Amino acid sequence: MNIINLDHISANPLLPEVQEAMIKAIQGNYGNPSSQHKMGEQASEAIEQARESLARLINCRAPKEIVFGSCGTESVNHAIKGIALAHSDKGKHIVSSNIEHNAVIRSLRRLKMMGFQVTSIPVDNHGRVNPDHVAKAIREDTILVTIMHSNNEVGTVQPIEEISKITRERNVLFHTDGVDSVGVVPIDVQELGVDALSFASNPFYGPTGVGGLYVRAGVKLWPLLEGGAQENNKRAGTENLIGIIGMGVAAELAKRDMDSRISHLKNLRTKLIQELPDHIDEYLINGDPEHCLPNLVSLSIKYIEGESVVLMLDDDNIEVSTRSACASGSLRASHVLLSTGLGFAEAQGTLVITFGVDNTEKDIAQFLAALKKTVKTLRAYSPLYNK
Amino acid sequence: MNIINLDHISANPLLPEVQEAMIKAIQGNYGNPSSQHKMGEQASEAIEQARESLARLINCRAPKEIVFGSCGTESVNHAIKGIALAHSDKGKHIVSSNIEHNAVIRSLRRLKMMGFQVTSIPVDNHGRVNPDHVAKAIREDTILVTIMHSNNEVGTVQPIEEISKITRERNVLFHTDGVDSVGVVPIDVQELGVDALSFASNPFYGPTGVGGLYVRAGVKLWPLLEGGAQENNKRAGTENLIGIIGMGVAAELAKRDMDSRISHLKNLRTKLIQELPDHIDEYLINGDPEHCLPNLVSLSIKYIEGESVVLMLDDDNIEVSTRSACASGSLRASHVLLSTGLGFAEAQGTLVITFGVDNTEKDIAQFLAALKKTVKTLRAYSPLYNK
Repeated sequence: MNIINLDHISANPLLPEVQEAMIKAIQGNYGNPSSQHKMGEQASEAIEQARESLARLINCRAPKEIVFGSCGTESVNHAIKGIALAHSDKGKHIVSSNIEHNAVIRSLRRLKMMGFQVTSIPVDNHGRVNPDHVAKAIREDTILVTIMHSNNEVGTVQPIEEISKITRERNVLFHTDGVDSVGVVPIDVQELGVDALSFASNPFYGPTGVGGLYVRAGVKLWPLLEGGAQENNKRAGTENLIGIIGMGVAAELAKRDMDSRISHLKNLRTKLIQELPDHIDEYLINGDPEHCLPNLVSLSIKYIEGESVVLMLDDDNIEVSTRSACASGSLRASHVLLSTGLGFAEAQGTLVITFGVDNTEKDIAQFLAALKKTVKTLRAYSPLYNK
Repeated sequence: MNIINLDHISANPLLPEVQEAMIKAIQGNYGNPSSQHKMGEQASEAIEQARESLARLINCRAPKEIVFGSCGTESVNHAIKGIALAHSDKGKHIVSSNIEHNAVIRSLRRLKMMGFQVTSIPVDNHGRVNPDHVAKAIREDTILVTIMHSNNEVGTVQPIEEISKITRERNVLFHTDGVDSVGVVPIDVQELGVDALSFASNPFYGPTGVGGLYVRAGVKLWPLLEGGAQENNKRAGTENLIGIIGMGVAAELAKRDMDSRISHLKNLRTKLIQELPDHIDEYLINGDPEHCLPNLVSLSIKYIEGESVVLMLDDDNIEVSTRSACASGSLRASHVLLSTGLGFAEAQGTLVITFGVDNTEKDIAQFLAALKKTVKTLRAYSPLYNK
């Protein structure tokens, strides 16, 4: 069965080199990185090598600023809860935005139950935060700003550097959820000026079940997982060695191939957007035309439901999604789309199409043909369209 | 290089069937279990199959009582912090023991910083908790008892069923850290009567980076990782699919081969203990001779340091450890050994020898010969011995 994957944001395939490294690690039966004997040393070296690869990918000052964990969600929870709880003596106010991932939203909701206050900043129609709004939201008791680097539903990239100028000036820590950016677009934590940045391995073709958190040296945070002394005492638990090895190789490749990948993805994105009018009408492209991920198109098709399109395209072996996989299955309209000013009906008719290095122009052509057929069929049953 | 692994508690090798399943999963490039299309469904089915294997291994009432996570440490943090924070309106007192793993100790330390109180119960010379002491420690405001199933340094198995009779009668929740027991000795959560049980995959020859938590249906706890709706809303984050598949296969094999493995391990343990007097003198075997893990011998050798033995045996390609890998590198004497009444010097001279299915009687013979030589060499330089 030949499946066309246009839902890379849910699951990227593992690159052959990543597969190879992981299989070698499985067959190699490494020891425990914390052990003091040879078997342990080999494992420990493999982890430090991966840490160096990640440090190069995001340009840390030192590899030890990277804390490996089990997923982007863990990193986000670790950063937000960990920084908030470690600094609660200074204040209990946090600034965030209206279009964050659920990992951010639910971490903040938990902190609110523990006495913290959160100011959530609106975005414009393109899904962008205005840095002036961040400046205005910061109070005397603000200890943390958390605003995502890129949005996983509309692809908008935020003005992180401009925001970090404000947070530095105001002496407030700044975390950015970089899960859909790290390894996809160039990320330089020193240029961005952030104090913490969350990432996951799968967006750059590494395995799921492994991610990490950049924490600038000197920034205090309470560990989420406590026990052993792993990860410089910042994250206890025996490491996912096979996953970390896979992520390290994926990071090397992401750095090496970044430019060519972006150019390939942009080409597919442009082709899709340019040819859409020949296949369907009455739709919107969401997000920011200038500040956007190269691998994502958010498309709101009027008078039909996105969920129905996903299921019908699945019958044609074409995989797309309506929103982030973490939230799929929920029938509520996306908070991200509503925040950009989209109406409820338009939000329900939204598809998120995400490309990967394995996609070709032919995939786009097949998708467009299938979409045309699907939209026609669904609209034939749509009472709104027939009016 | 032929290495004799007598440090299985730090790192168990992956069984061939587990390797095969993981390699197949890597090459299969599954989707995201939360996606609504075919690729997602395959992944979701693989996870639910693993959940059923784990449920059979520990005899849950329903597979959904199992929450997958990234390691034993995560499960322990999740259970202890999650139950405590979800029940803090009822009380803020927790009962634990003096010989817990650092994941338990540090989770409790964190809760103390948040206003909780902890009563830690002593153990006898065999490392065993007296259930009467638990009964006496429970107060009106006690919300949780957390006592490990088996100890990772001395191998003592606790009277969990007797303790759970008390916690049930007193209406207090009971978590047990079963990381070194699940998949190693028979565990039946219904017979044990516990409300939560932590486990990891590696002790039964599954990969590191994956573990789980049994939470009896109806028991409330705050998720440690929040975001998406994964794991029945108990643990957010895209799943470590490859690891979970590996753990599922390992669980099936552990259940199937439990009896023969235990008989093999007991045989090696008996051989080691019986033949020790022919190789060294002035030593102690720690732990409980009756209630003990079949795969662990804790040996305190007088007048020398365990760390030196580990390093010298490593030169002979024999791997043992002085304590749990999570705590290795620390020069402090083990809190577990001191709690059983061992003196500081004896604690420093302790080796933890842990067997696996791959060990043979020949390994034991080689270890004994190397140990004899090592002890002789080290004691030649020991001022205490030469007195």
